[in-house]
Amino acid sequence: MGETPAYRARDFSFAVEAADGRARAGRLETPHGVVETPCFMPVGTKATVKGVAPRDLAALGARVVLANTYHLYFRPGAEVVALHGGLHGFMRWPGPILTDSGGFQVFSLADTRLVTDDGVEFSSVYDGSRHVFTPRLAMEVQERLGADIVMCFDQCAPGVLPRDELVAAVDRTTRWAAACREAHGRRDQLLVGIVQGGVDEELRRRSAAELLDVGFDAYAIGGLSVGERGDEMLATVELMDDLLPRARLRYFMGLGDPVGLLEVVRRGVDVFDCVLPTRMARTGTALTADGRLNLRNARHARDLRPLEDDCDCPACAGFSRAYLRHLVLQKEMLAAQLLSLHNLRVLIRLTERARAAIRAGAFAEFATSVIARYRAGG
Amino acid sequence: MGETPAYRARDFSFAVEAADGRARAGRLETPHGVVETPCFMPVGTKATVKGVAPRDLAALGARVVLANTYHLYFRPGAEVVALHGGLHGFMRWPGPILTDSGGFQVFSLADTRLVTDDGVEFSSVYDGSRHVFTPRLAMEVQERLGADIVMCFDQCAPGVLPRDELVAAVDRTTRWAAACREAHGRRDQLLVGIVQGGVDEELRRRSAAELLDVGFDAYAIGGLSVGERGDEMLATVELMDDLLPRARLRYFMGLGDPVGLLEVVRRGVDVFDCVLPTRMARTGTALTADGRLNLRNARHARDLRPLEDDCDCPACAGFSRAYLRHLVLQKEMLAAQLLSLHNLRVLIRLTERARAAIRAGAFAEFATSVIARYRAGG
Repeated sequence: MGETPAYRARDFSFAVEAADGRARAGRLETPHGVVETPCFMPVGTKATVKGVAPRDLAALGARVVLANTYHLYFRPGAEVVALHGGLHGFMRWPGPILTDSGGFQVFSLADTRLVTDDGVEFSSVYDGSRHVFTPRLAMEVQERLGADIVMCFDQCAPGVLPRDELVAAVDRTTRWAAACREAHGRRDQLLVGIVQGGVDEELRRRSAAELLDVGFDAYAIGGLSVGERGDEMLATVELMDDLLPRARLRYFMGLGDPVGLLEVVRRGVDVFDCVLPTRMARTGTALTADGRLNLRNARHARDLRPLEDDCDCPACAGFSRAYLRHLVLQKEMLAAQLLSLHNLRVLIRLTERARAAIRAGAFAEFATSVIARYRAGG
Repeated sequence: MGETPAYRARDFSFAVEAADGRARAGRLETPHGVVETPCFMPVGTKATVKGVAPRDLAALGARVVLANTYHLYFRPGAEVVALHGGLHGFMRWPGPILTDSGGFQVFSLADTRLVTDDGVEFSSVYDGSRHVFTPRLAMEVQERLGADIVMCFDQCAPGVLPRDELVAAVDRTTRWAAACREAHGRRDQLLVGIVQGGVDEELRRRSAAELLDVGFDAYAIGGLSVGERGDEMLATVELMDDLLPRARLRYFMGLGDPVGLLEVVRRGVDVFDCVLPTRMARTGTALTADGRLNLRNARHARDLRPLEDDCDCPACAGFSRAYLRHLVLQKEMLAAQLLSLHNLRVLIRLTERARAAIRAGAFAEFATSVIARYRAGG
């Protein structure tokens, strides 16, 4: 299986510093700072991690923030972001930023869409107007948004689709990846190729081989965590670990539950993202080492304890479960703010501890005990 | 006009340190810290200043926070707050706290209420259940909530009411004030008497004389800024300055626009509160030295400037008007968070500058120039 050898991006480097089984502890250097992996990346869809100011996000230990090309293309428009020198200036996040390509939203949000080999015609969720996204446009927009890490325009095909649709999605994803590689000009951005193929081993092998042939600085595993069975998902991640070069960063798109996170780290994934921690926060649910905690539950009404005794987040610095429950029930903004800080910190701290365990050669025991406790509590 | 001389509260003192005309710079000592006046007090109705964490509030220079007896009585209940050792522990605000009596909500929120000389029977806004608030209950609840500064149960009577209703409200307020004084037992709480009487000079004189006769540690001016003409309101404040002892703290209830704030400071008021800065923030409006700024306006779409060049709040630390407008239009929580911080800081900073001007004997010029600029811009 060949790979185009040369990095095209400037000012980036990635090195695996330690490994423990398939699990890796790595170091990614970007023009906006260093990212130690494994790393959970908070999602700031519309150029804001909902309810969390950038300085508070940094204080949690967040290193990379995601933003969404589809939404920012429509509101406020890439031109307004570019006026600020790009997303770093616009959202005032000084660290590394990753933008997705908009492909996922084009396929998942549009009611009526027309997919051709060139791209996708669809209706905007904002005003219903018709638009066409192509690999070239996805690159142009991401260059204007100015993130450090940018994603190829792909077709996310869930494993539950009929095989002929999966095949078509893999073929299209490869063609579009080559078109993105061709169109992408900013050498201060790391372009990531996305492997598709659902949970079909043959298609995953083909997609990986074709993307390696195009050659990317980093690889993402797309099309998982979208409805397939858990064991199929994990088997596919393990296959990807065999297929992708060990010296390249691997990104699992859309994963944010503590158990899943450890399971993919165990199988060689370096970075992941998910809206889960902040979305759960807005519904009054906290992540804890003992599972999810629903603050609406009456049993918390007089509970003076913090969410977690040993958590170092601002929500656990004195606020009781009873107070947080009061905020949730009264729909006070501070509920979502504090729970978002807590949930993000839980995932970030988990990756920090995973990294330490990998470096100590003790990842398997670490993951097993964390997962057992989480499942016992939930 | 007599006044019962002895302070009943322990660990409190108030001193006027400087005066400039009727305007005063004072110092209030409480068990939870010192408050320099003039002072704007942010409102945290349900034990949270909407969208602002306590540590961020402290960083803005906020010194006293308000909370609401009516709302906390129903949700989560005074007992839950008391379990936390009171509001300081419940909401994690280490500084001074003031609770209103719940009287304003009893009169303004209830559809069907029955006012007697003993109290008010009304329906809860939470579940429609019938309740009776009396002066004694208002004291009991406030003692359990444990604020530093607590308010008498009064009947807020707007100046636009017929005179016989105003008279009845003044009589009732006096009787209830005496009952509150009698019922209030916590000597680590400062109990504030509220003067009513609308904009009727004779009634204001009577209300003030009667309350001074009961004797309080501090006096509030109630029943203003509720529909009367601006000149009548200010004339009444000036009258109150003549009637209330100069050595006592004066609190104007419910005022938060920059012009009104300076006008009542000019007439001898020390502290005031209002939901305006945070409520405006949630609708996308910023307070500036040049008037109100509605971020929904299209003219801000590409404006790279901060809300105010010389503001030291977190929102003005790099976030552009264009970005803030984007957050407002996309209904992102961070919009309300950042604008709340800004609007609160504007009012707090205004009182800091007013205090310095009073001490420098230059308050009149200061107020005139601030008001002129604000009005020219708005």
